[in-house]
Amino acid sequence: MSEVYATRRMRVRERCNAAGAAAALVSRPANVRYLAGAAPHGAVLLLGKREDLLVCAGPPDDRPTEGRLDEALRVHALPRPGGDPAVAAADLATGQGADSLAVEEHHLTVARHRAIGSVVPRLRLADLGGAVEQLRVVKDEEEISCLRIGAEIADQALGELLESILVGRTERHLALELERRLVDHGADGPAFATSVGTGPHSGRRGHRPTDRRVEEGDFLSVCLGATYRGYRCEIGRTFVIGTSPADWQIELYDLVFAAQRAGRESLVPGAAYRDVDRAARQVLDSAGHGEGLPPLTGHGVGLEIDEDPQLAPAAMGKLDACVPVTVEPGVHLPGRGGVRIDDTLVVRPEADGGPELLTITTKELLAL
Amino acid sequence: MSEVYATRRMRVRERCNAAGAAAALVSRPANVRYLAGAAPHGAVLLLGKREDLLVCAGPPDDRPTEGRLDEALRVHALPRPGGDPAVAAADLATGQGADSLAVEEHHLTVARHRAIGSVVPRLRLADLGGAVEQLRVVKDEEEISCLRIGAEIADQALGELLESILVGRTERHLALELERRLVDHGADGPAFATSVGTGPHSGRRGHRPTDRRVEEGDFLSVCLGATYRGYRCEIGRTFVIGTSPADWQIELYDLVFAAQRAGRESLVPGAAYRDVDRAARQVLDSAGHGEGLPPLTGHGVGLEIDEDPQLAPAAMGKLDACVPVTVEPGVHLPGRGGVRIDDTLVVRPEADGGPELLTITTKELLAL
Repeated sequence: MSEVYATRRMRVRERCNAAGAAAALVSRPANVRYLAGAAPHGAVLLLGKREDLLVCAGPPDDRPTEGRLDEALRVHALPRPGGDPAVAAADLATGQGADSLAVEEHHLTVARHRAIGSVVPRLRLADLGGAVEQLRVVKDEEEISCLRIGAEIADQALGELLESILVGRTERHLALELERRLVDHGADGPAFATSVGTGPHSGRRGHRPTDRRVEEGDFLSVCLGATYRGYRCEIGRTFVIGTSPADWQIELYDLVFAAQRAGRESLVPGAAYRDVDRAARQVLDSAGHGEGLPPLTGHGVGLEIDEDPQLAPAAMGKLDACVPVTVEPGVHLPGRGGVRIDDTLVVRPEADGGPELLTITTKELLAL
Repeated sequence: MSEVYATRRMRVRERCNAAGAAAALVSRPANVRYLAGAAPHGAVLLLGKREDLLVCAGPPDDRPTEGRLDEALRVHALPRPGGDPAVAAADLATGQGADSLAVEEHHLTVARHRAIGSVVPRLRLADLGGAVEQLRVVKDEEEISCLRIGAEIADQALGELLESILVGRTERHLALELERRLVDHGADGPAFATSVGTGPHSGRRGHRPTDRRVEEGDFLSVCLGATYRGYRCEIGRTFVIGTSPADWQIELYDLVFAAQRAGRESLVPGAAYRDVDRAARQVLDSAGHGEGLPPLTGHGVGLEIDEDPQLAPAAMGKLDACVPVTVEPGVHLPGRGGVRIDDTLVVRPEADGGPELLTITTKELLAL
């Protein structure tokens, strides 16, 4: 694995040098983990002129951190707690002969940036921008394999829940039960706060579970994901409770299903992000649900649950192969509820069979 | 409640005006919630010259946000998603006639700060610093009451766990079980990731639960907390598994207990933060455990689990009445395990009975 991290760091260094900076400081935790294998709390990564260093907030304690640190990487621990590793790293960069340092301006606070400027005034500070995030968009097969295992775990947890009795249980309890099952099946933990919405809450993106109980006749929307070796996937399904869904429920379900399928089918290398969004959105739009749709139809996943790309009307860029994204259109009718269907897929060339569906739980409308 | 929020906002505005800024922009979510009653995702609070505004990232959706927004506060929603509420708020500040705006430089990123500067170049940007955090240190009785209820919930969850069979269960499962019980008893959710450490993992601050199972003869350390109406408390206890603790276990427990008591007893209005830390630390130090102690003995709690003050060797400042803090010394012996004892208490004058202990689970060494 060490080689993988070294290659990633080399690519960031190349971009950074091309932009005229001698060294780079990576502070965003997911970026640190991507380049170093692990991100101990508060640690930053210096890509220096002579050597890369992981700079940590205090003496290494024996707390397990998520991930495994690249053994080839030297760790520099601040001698006493309370110091800012970013400031120390800037100082170390100068020590290695760098006269300029690219920092993640979208992550570093103004206060930390100022502190670097005042402690190491000779150092010219530049912006690394989203260079590491851009590298993270296309995944290697090792990363995709982690996502695939996470998706299997989420499918298992969801499948088991569906075999249990649901009527009378609260959204909160169903969410906790799902999270317990994720861990049972080997997840590091949930990939994000599990969302369970019943009745009027169903179909809402990111609904926080309440004490509402599942009732006969409800739509039940569930959205969950597993983290596996740091990689986060997402699955969302909507079910109907009771034996006979109402006509409006069947209609709405079919509509969202058609939108989600349209989105999935447009996942080909070279497709514009906005076209994937439009494919799904226009199905809902033409059925009169254009108002109040969520701002995006899907997004990248990886070390964070919400990564680039954004599949949204104003998004710029095109899909590459090996980019895992969600496709998650939904409609929520205030006071009545709604439907969301959410898959994680990996973009693959048609020659390889087209998009690879990671979350394989059925998307038929199940009456539970 | 609306009056409480208006008073808090007035106090921030006073500090901000005293520092020469006409308006203030609050972006840190816990600070937004403190001043507005709720912090919808991405929302910022403008304390303007003419009017205070909550500026939200998109049209208000019907998702429940934690907390209840102050009804007296006007909400300004950005017409389309993707914009930065901080930039919009700066623009609105100018519209109200402000020529200067104090921002939270310790929270705002360099990129957002720059975006404000380029969209509203006439506006002079100043630093609000930790003004809101400082206000948050001393709690009112309403806030303390939320912490007290949260502590009762945590005590209940812990008490129930102790009645169950522990041997053979994994750290992960015990942690999930505790979190489920917190929610059962009415918590919004856990206040932080529940820590359960057995055997060699016991006594570690912030230990992440693993698949290690509880064994006869182990120390078992548990640290959990409930969030109630946004307020977060913390309790930590160490138990011994089996009927007869070893001599070293009893000795170590007594030592940490003595250190924790010394810390608790030093919680009086006017005591220096560092003196509280020293009271606990020197007990451990003089027993030869000075090396490897965590950098702090305790910290404030409230809307965040780790707030000011820090009870640490280099901390500056003195305790006031009505400041809730944790006292949580611990010793971890690599390879063997250790003991941590952690309470949440509210500093009270001696005339009122001295420090109020919120987490009342016994601190006797229980053999389970």
